[in-house]
Amino acid sequence: MPARKAVVLLSGGLDSATTLAIAVAAGFEPYALSFRYGQRHAVELDAAAEVARRLGAIQHVVAEIDLRAFGGSALTADIAVPKGRSIEEMGTGIPVTYVPARNTIFLSYALGWAEVLGAADIFIGVNALDYSGYPDCRPEFIAAFENLARLATRAGTEDEIPFQIHTPLISLSKAEIIQRGAALGVDFSITRSCYDPGADGEACGECDSCQLRLKGFRVNGMRDPARYMER
Amino acid sequence: MPARKAVVLLSGGLDSATTLAIAVAAGFEPYALSFRYGQRHAVELDAAAEVARRLGAIQHVVAEIDLRAFGGSALTADIAVPKGRSIEEMGTGIPVTYVPARNTIFLSYALGWAEVLGAADIFIGVNALDYSGYPDCRPEFIAAFENLARLATRAGTEDEIPFQIHTPLISLSKAEIIQRGAALGVDFSITRSCYDPGADGEACGECDSCQLRLKGFRVNGMRDPARYMER
Repeated sequence: MPARKAVVLLSGGLDSATTLAIAVAAGFEPYALSFRYGQRHAVELDAAAEVARRLGAIQHVVAEIDLRAFGGSALTADIAVPKGRSIEEMGTGIPVTYVPARNTIFLSYALGWAEVLGAADIFIGVNALDYSGYPDCRPEFIAAFENLARLATRAGTEDEIPFQIHTPLISLSKAEIIQRGAALGVDFSITRSCYDPGADGEACGECDSCQLRLKGFRVNGMRDPARYMER
Repeated sequence: MPARKAVVLLSGGLDSATTLAIAVAAGFEPYALSFRYGQRHAVELDAAAEVARRLGAIQHVVAEIDLRAFGGSALTADIAVPKGRSIEEMGTGIPVTYVPARNTIFLSYALGWAEVLGAADIFIGVNALDYSGYPDCRPEFIAAFENLARLATRAGTEDEIPFQIHTPLISLSKAEIIQRGAALGVDFSITRSCYDPGADGEACGECDSCQLRLKGFRVNGMRDPARYMER
């Protein structure tokens, strides 16, 4: 059977790198998709390109979109990224780093590209456990998008394979994701997770994303190979 | 009761202009959203700005997105726009002017902006009758997006008003849409529907969109005030 094409959303972080490795291990031909959306942590796009190359993506596209026009998030607008929150605090409410409708927009683009490629599979590294409280990371959101995808597209109106949204990390802890990625040979030193990195791409170590990542390595008794700011 | 904010998708065509007029007549404060997506008929964006101004939109945003990266449609890529198809032919299959996942992407942006504005209402001028065969114009697609919107967002996780996708034109014929717009005072001379306009914005008169429009006016015994190419 020939390999099936899949579109894999790739941010350049640890989760999406592991997701790409999982898609490859499952025998898919991966087409990696990243976004330049005015994020303050644009250094992650260099990481995404490197991850795509190392893990053998057939193609890597960076779509230019502008979410800043709408404002509303610490990741794109002039709002401070919170630092030093406890992991318990992260679980309560939706943080200011939430980008309105971001995963909906990202999945919509993935769907468009999948349709053009003739791919019926989309991979996204969302996680509902160590997930920092974003509504568009929940399993019920993904199920709703899958339903939408089947209705939205040319394929959905004909008798083709229905679209499937793969979320291999959705019920894993950060520590389990790291184990999984490590087992598949992901080089975490090239991944970037920080919401507010320094000029040379070094991670702050204090935002929600850094803290969750550091805890994941710690729980596994591993050292995070990413570069962090001196403190 | 204060007016409720609504995001209205505005292409600059006859349908979306009528949809905006309907939102205004229903008492909403309209925020108009258009897209520059590499369409060959970018002249419609000037029309959208003029329509937004005349119908009293509070704000008009043109989001820059790039659907050309994926290719795949006569509206964005180097594929000829079909001309002179009969209206019966249009009803069969999905035409090459179909842009993959376009309405999914447009609605996703509308959702993001609505969330930032604190709006719970989105208007889109899709039409399932004289609709040229696009899968993402069907009522079941809209229902699926509404379901998604309620799950995707901050509002959806709290006890706020659920998102509503308004499709006031969905079951109207083109002739009925024109009647409705005319009754609400829409100046159709400033709207643009052509998929393949001339350099000065004049309509070709032969693409699917022009033909559906011309027929709509004809059925009403009206003259289309838009400018057409000399033939």
